[in-house]
Amino acid sequence: MSLWGGRFSEPTDDDLKRLNDSFGFDRRMYRQDIHGSIAYARAIRDANVITPEECEQICSGLEQVLAEFESGSFDTTPADEDIHTAVERRLTEMIGPVAGKLHTGRSRNDQVATDLRLWTIDAIKEMDSLLDHLQQALVEQASAHTDTLMPGYTHVQPAQPIVAGHWLMSFFWMIARDRDRLRDASRRTSEMPLGSGALAGNPFAIDREKLAEDLNFTSHSQNSLDGVSDRDFVAEMLFALALVGTHLSRLGEDIVLYSNPGFGFIRLNDRYSTGSSIMPQKRNADPMELARGKAGRLLGNLTGFMATLKGLPSSYNKDIQEDKEALFDSVDTLHAILPVVIAIVSTLNINVEKCRAALADDMLATELADYLVDKGIPFREAHHLVGASVRLTEQTGRTLTTLSLEQYQSISPHFEQGLFDSLSFERAVARKSAIGGTAPTAVRQQIDTARQWLAQWNQ
Amino acid sequence: MSLWGGRFSEPTDDDLKRLNDSFGFDRRMYRQDIHGSIAYARAIRDANVITPEECEQICSGLEQVLAEFESGSFDTTPADEDIHTAVERRLTEMIGPVAGKLHTGRSRNDQVATDLRLWTIDAIKEMDSLLDHLQQALVEQASAHTDTLMPGYTHVQPAQPIVAGHWLMSFFWMIARDRDRLRDASRRTSEMPLGSGALAGNPFAIDREKLAEDLNFTSHSQNSLDGVSDRDFVAEMLFALALVGTHLSRLGEDIVLYSNPGFGFIRLNDRYSTGSSIMPQKRNADPMELARGKAGRLLGNLTGFMATLKGLPSSYNKDIQEDKEALFDSVDTLHAILPVVIAIVSTLNINVEKCRAALADDMLATELADYLVDKGIPFREAHHLVGASVRLTEQTGRTLTTLSLEQYQSISPHFEQGLFDSLSFERAVARKSAIGGTAPTAVRQQIDTARQWLAQWNQ
Amino acid sequence: MSLWGGRFSEPTDDDLKRLNDSFGFDRRMYRQDIHGSIAYARAIRDANVITPEECEQICSGLEQVLAEFESGSFDTTPADEDIHTAVERRLTEMIGPVAGKLHTGRSRNDQVATDLRLWTIDAIKEMDSLLDHLQQALVEQASAHTDTLMPGYTHVQPAQPIVAGHWLMSFFWMIARDRDRLRDASRRTSEMPLGSGALAGNPFAIDREKLAEDLNFTSHSQNSLDGVSDRDFVAEMLFALALVGTHLSRLGEDIVLYSNPGFGFIRLNDRYSTGSSIMPQKRNADPMELARGKAGRLLGNLTGFMATLKGLPSSYNKDIQEDKEALFDSVDTLHAILPVVIAIVSTLNINVEKCRAALADDMLATELADYLVDKGIPFREAHHLVGASVRLTEQTGRTLTTLSLEQYQSISPHFEQGLFDSLSFERAVARKSAIGGTAPTAVRQQIDTARQWLAQWNQ
Amino acid sequence: MSLWGGRFSEPTDDDLKRLNDSFGFDRRMYRQDIHGSIAYARAIRDANVITPEECEQICSGLEQVLAEFESGSFDTTPADEDIHTAVERRLTEMIGPVAGKLHTGRSRNDQVATDLRLWTIDAIKEMDSLLDHLQQALVEQASAHTDTLMPGYTHVQPAQPIVAGHWLMSFFWMIARDRDRLRDASRRTSEMPLGSGALAGNPFAIDREKLAEDLNFTSHSQNSLDGVSDRDFVAEMLFALALVGTHLSRLGEDIVLYSNPGFGFIRLNDRYSTGSSIMPQKRNADPMELARGKAGRLLGNLTGFMATLKGLPSSYNKDIQEDKEALFDSVDTLHAILPVVIAIVSTLNINVEKCRAALADDMLATELADYLVDKGIPFREAHHLVGASVRLTEQTGRTLTTLSLEQYQSISPHFEQGLFDSLSFERAVARKSAIGGTAPTAVRQQIDTARQWLAQWNQ
Repeated sequence: MSLWGGRFSEPTDDDLKRLNDSFGFDRRMYRQDIHGSIAYARAIRDANVITPEECEQICSGLEQVLAEFESGSFDTTPADEDIHTAVERRLTEMIGPVAGKLHTGRSRNDQVATDLRLWTIDAIKEMDSLLDHLQQALVEQASAHTDTLMPGYTHVQPAQPIVAGHWLMSFFWMIARDRDRLRDASRRTSEMPLGSGALAGNPFAIDREKLAEDLNFTSHSQNSLDGVSDRDFVAEMLFALALVGTHLSRLGEDIVLYSNPGFGFIRLNDRYSTGSSIMPQKRNADPMELARGKAGRLLGNLTGFMATLKGLPSSYNKDIQEDKEALFDSVDTLHAILPVVIAIVSTLNINVEKCRAALADDMLATELADYLVDKGIPFREAHHLVGASVRLTEQTGRTLTTLSLEQYQSISPHFEQGLFDSLSFERAVARKSAIGGTAPTAVRQQIDTARQWLAQWNQ
Repeated sequence: MSLWGGRFSEPTDDDLKRLNDSFGFDRRMYRQDIHGSIAYARAIRDANVITPEECEQICSGLEQVLAEFESGSFDTTPADEDIHTAVERRLTEMIGPVAGKLHTGRSRNDQVATDLRLWTIDAIKEMDSLLDHLQQALVEQASAHTDTLMPGYTHVQPAQPIVAGHWLMSFFWMIARDRDRLRDASRRTSEMPLGSGALAGNPFAIDREKLAEDLNFTSHSQNSLDGVSDRDFVAEMLFALALVGTHLSRLGEDIVLYSNPGFGFIRLNDRYSTGSSIMPQKRNADPMELARGKAGRLLGNLTGFMATLKGLPSSYNKDIQEDKEALFDSVDTLHAILPVVIAIVSTLNINVEKCRAALADDMLATELADYLVDKGIPFREAHHLVGASVRLTEQTGRTLTTLSLEQYQSISPHFEQGLFDSLSFERAVARKSAIGGTAPTAVRQQIDTARQWLAQWNQ
Repeated sequence: MSLWGGRFSEPTDDDLKRLNDSFGFDRRMYRQDIHGSIAYARAIRDANVITPEECEQICSGLEQVLAEFESGSFDTTPADEDIHTAVERRLTEMIGPVAGKLHTGRSRNDQVATDLRLWTIDAIKEMDSLLDHLQQALVEQASAHTDTLMPGYTHVQPAQPIVAGHWLMSFFWMIARDRDRLRDASRRTSEMPLGSGALAGNPFAIDREKLAEDLNFTSHSQNSLDGVSDRDFVAEMLFALALVGTHLSRLGEDIVLYSNPGFGFIRLNDRYSTGSSIMPQKRNADPMELARGKAGRLLGNLTGFMATLKGLPSSYNKDIQEDKEALFDSVDTLHAILPVVIAIVSTLNINVEKCRAALADDMLATELADYLVDKGIPFREAHHLVGASVRLTEQTGRTLTTLSLEQYQSISPHFEQGLFDSLSFERAVARKSAIGGTAPTAVRQQIDTARQWLAQWNQ
Repeated sequence: MSLWGGRFSEPTDDDLKRLNDSFGFDRRMYRQDIHGSIAYARAIRDANVITPEECEQICSGLEQVLAEFESGSFDTTPADEDIHTAVERRLTEMIGPVAGKLHTGRSRNDQVATDLRLWTIDAIKEMDSLLDHLQQALVEQASAHTDTLMPGYTHVQPAQPIVAGHWLMSFFWMIARDRDRLRDASRRTSEMPLGSGALAGNPFAIDREKLAEDLNFTSHSQNSLDGVSDRDFVAEMLFALALVGTHLSRLGEDIVLYSNPGFGFIRLNDRYSTGSSIMPQKRNADPMELARGKAGRLLGNLTGFMATLKGLPSSYNKDIQEDKEALFDSVDTLHAILPVVIAIVSTLNINVEKCRAALADDMLATELADYLVDKGIPFREAHHLVGASVRLTEQTGRTLTTLSLEQYQSISPHFEQGLFDSLSFERAVARKSAIGGTAPTAVRQQIDTARQWLAQWNQ
């Protein structure tokens, strides 16, 4: 039973049916679809389109269909083009022709847009919770390493010493932005299109404000053409998820690098390491590579769907059906990665000795420049003098701490014995005490701020 | 004078300089760079790194450099690697070595991130204003066409009658979401990274809260590693702009189609039409095609930059320098398109007669089904009966209004004389009176809502 | 049984297994995997790594595993991480520990690269055949319409008359390029990586040239690091398929537009049209909208995978596992669309009358200019004079054929009675007789060329 | 003077002109445009549209315009909409109204497509030459390091020893594929659209085969609609360049990592290193980070332009004008990166000692497994036994070479004294002697093959 066959004299081609049908993937919205239908039945009851008895019949029938989906006993037929058709077909089997009244004034165009928004709002809630777990894991791990010295890099080259907790916390704030972005996306998604009809609006004067309330939407669409065809919320969700993926990819890159013995800062738990079919010694950080690689896939979903939207004529076009597979795939991808990433962060074994051992004297060059600054030398000149000192260490095979005072003074008389006091990793770190800096005190304060952030967010 | 040459024994290769230097495009941030430097000078003065006199010298020097940029008299030298180097170089020429104190505790990493955020916040303000003009133009044009009947399409096939004002207003709400999205982006951009140093934080205990206030940021970054390398705000801006572009592309597609004589609904003003080098009769809607086509470019900027971010190691990496050209190009692209689109909407000539003439009887099929619904027939059955009626019109060469009652009754006895009353375009439109529908009353209400939206937004 | 567990003391986490395992999607390469293994068994037999008897055992075991896959009787176990593990596990069950000799000197890295290349080469063959059907359908349909006049558009605005067969043939050449591009892709894919080991090469001096021959590869990789990590062929395939998709999207756009009654040039067969759940009269070209929309998805697969490749370190990284789902999805997408598009083209109902009726006099403006050119007027001036004539038709409500000679002469004395002879659609079309033009003679010649192209290609 | 103003009563809006005009970027095609015009003038002379004298006048005028461009003396006027308009305008100034005859039967649509193809063919030649230099540099550098042992990685974790020359050569073959792909792209680009007119073909029976020959095209388009709107060659070029970029990004990632002191394998020449504005010791591989980052930009250009093409209606649409900036930017980007990358490869300082020092015993685990294989143990079992040995090294703090025979035998009696012979990095490398392996002999053979490849390619 197609919903629309009356005007055609020939049946739909089988290849086309296969191409067109979406039940294979949109069935996962069954809950949203049925809740939407129950609310709509009540709306047309209130608008006197159906009687209270008919409404009752329809709603209890729908509850039964829902129960079948929940229990896994829903039987599919080849005619089930999409979730809407499938539900209506089954409802008709259960309660007879009165089921045919449910679609009065409603189109699949406003129905599917409503379903997908409800689904997205739910998906954002779950994603927020996963991201919360990741942030918790980061905070916990970071708070164990507020004093663990390690090299900080820029351009992947040694820059200045930092503490490991600071490194971990940098990802906390990326995820905080992600959650903030998803919350905004959820707010914009929470605009009910139901009552837009096929494109022109609802002709039965239903109360859309009440309907929106019943479905827990915060508002309703203001224009029916826009209502049926707006998929900004999908694009925005795909973008927000792609950015989550980008953040995970950066964490992935770091963990992959830091697991290399040249760094050796990190060792993944056996449970999260993988081996090789040919090299018995292998210990790979596969999941973090996947976290890195799947950022591409998430970006592909975003790009592909935005390209699909580009240049579409007004109102509903079938192209828009491409929304769901992209969205579902991005959500599923993160649901597959995030639990593993969370577990990895939680069980991360940071090798404090190797972190410390990787610190090299030249990472104190800025300290030495700041030492000169304290003596009134303009920073730019100080930078130049220390640059010359570094060059001298390379020429002499020494380091900043093992150059002699004489050697320093050959570069500038401003260098005096006190310079050696500045050449301490602990001191270097401790000096970065302004908010957001890597000083252990600042990092502990940062962790407090983060915990407050979590507490407020999850209120 | 490079800022960093001290430790090297050979000069930088010329090809590398060309590849590396960014002054060609980042010079447009001169205002943000100088304001940032002035605020930073005060911050290190307050932290007793420089004296009030030195601060005064630096700040008044910077004001002079700013004046040179503003007046176009700033002279570039080949050593001007980027806007930061150029400003510091010029400042040094003006005030001597004390200029070298400005960079104390500051890195180009936190400096450029600060500049670009300030620039982006400004750019969002300007974009918001352009989008406001577009919304105003849409409202004005729509309010002139709340009663202009035209075909509404889905799948580009005739669906139901609508009014032209409703069609125009559908774009209003897309732009409303764009502005909302940009405002959120601006909020997230307004987080000052200055004081993050190169990566590890600021060692001079500057007051970052006060500094943020001075620069009109609403907050400051919480982690210096994140502070110097976070370009989420660029990605978010590129996304928001790409979505603006997508909306314009849909308007473009509609206007291009509706300008085709097969539709004939629209005629662009001569000033916004273009011709052909070979076909003298030509009248093309070039600018709307560009609006459509440039959505691709905006998407490319987004995709490209997110691909650049993907997999980057922690903290600052040079790859991030790719942020600016993408961002500038997307902003500039919309600054080129939007004024033209606004003017086109404002001067749009809607051909009321052709719009009306394009209405065909079968666009009333849903009305006829609703007529049967009113008689208690379940919608699904009504749909089927009307489908058969449409088939009959095709077989007989008639239309829904010219089929005879007998012909209707050959399909179903439920059809009675009253059916013909339902077959009115005006009535069809008027019935879509629920909020967001195409009924002229609802469209006028929609326009009121839109005007309130604008009033509130622009408060 | 994992292939690599020996060095770990804890089992792999379940979430990680789910994330990591690829058997769900890579099982479709079972044929390529087993053929590759059989050939490899022979190669290590020839290199005296295994005995002829062992080889025999392994090969006949593999044949049995293949038979199980072919018949659908292969039973999966949770330990089947990927197709390689699954096959080796089943082989071990069948022939015992000697199965463990098959992997000698081989890694999953070179194995999977080999499998995927073999699969891709097969997929290109099938794709080529589908595209051949599409070209055949275009040629057939075009040859029925070499004299069917219709408007030719540029910028979607009336430009010059063309014949419908010419329009159809324009897609033939796009597809010809696609097939050419896929053939090149196939050639570059046909480079066997087997024998690259994990990354460093094969230590058993196998004869890779013979191995490549056995597997019908035209050559073998020249560098093992590159051999295991090169996925250019996947990117190239995704690109070629995305471009096929782009071509289908343009055909889709045309057919969707031309099905709109404002054009009315085309009516899709009932079997390929779809209706609406609410509007009984509806007749949508859904499949062509999907053809248009899915171009986005195909582009997303390309973009996503290239972003995944970007910045990967040397040799094999797990990120590369993202290759298969993207590739499979692009191939499957086109396998879903193409048969429907082919059927639609084959059964396309071109409405000759409506095509003709849509021709408007001003589409002859270039003819009129060429008339002046024949009289020695420089084209640029002729263009200007005809432009003025068009303006006059708009001011007077006439057309180029109904303007009087006097009116023409008010613009220029160069206009003489003979001008009216130039104003013929048939003549306009016939004059475009240079190769590639729309003259019926040229189109027939074009169709001949196309048929020769097909004959040569399919030799 | 616009080429098309005759039919309009109002001048073009200034904002639109700015949006529409392309002279700013398409002027770089002046040479191609003028050569195309000269050839076209001869074609219409041969078709008797213009006289030999007129042709002569036009051609020598065009030569003069060309000379002005070449010498930099060409003066632009605000009316110069694009390169075609500019040239025609100047030609008219020089030779008077006869210039207006040049555009007879030609449209900017076929003209610009021709120009851009000629430009692309030239650009591919130059790109091929740059890539040749890169390959030469790789071969030279590799041939100096055929015996330099270094760790080979998979998943960025130690895998097996390789030689540095092998690592370098892996990039040679990527570039070889790039050149092959570009050559194919060039072949497909070399199809002349000139003579397609605006869309319908050329009405003056010009000889397109001869015209193609004159312009050094290998063939001509077969369908005028396709001829004016086909931009596959731009997409293909953008793809090929994006893949070059991806390869450079992988080289970039490797060099950035290997420059980190945790690896220390590489030191960039001072001329190609950059420093920091705040950290005096800094030595960054900026250019290789840009090589990595700009892969994103190149991908963005590809994605953006393909999104622009998606869903375009038949024949020429203004959207297509987006082709040039994307193409030019991708070409220019690689012209900026490649010379620097070439120089870096040529001057790469590989630290042989550090490479060797980074080899760890467990990278010999596969050797040990192969030792067991030689004794008849199935590889899978051997893998397991060696895995257990590796675990034992970790538990005992020993390595594979320092475990005692007793300890080995506690795992399996198959281990005997001879096992220690297998534990040699030199031997491990030497055993990978099959074609494409890392054995010094195989790498030298690979380099020979590469040199032959170059010799053949450049013939």
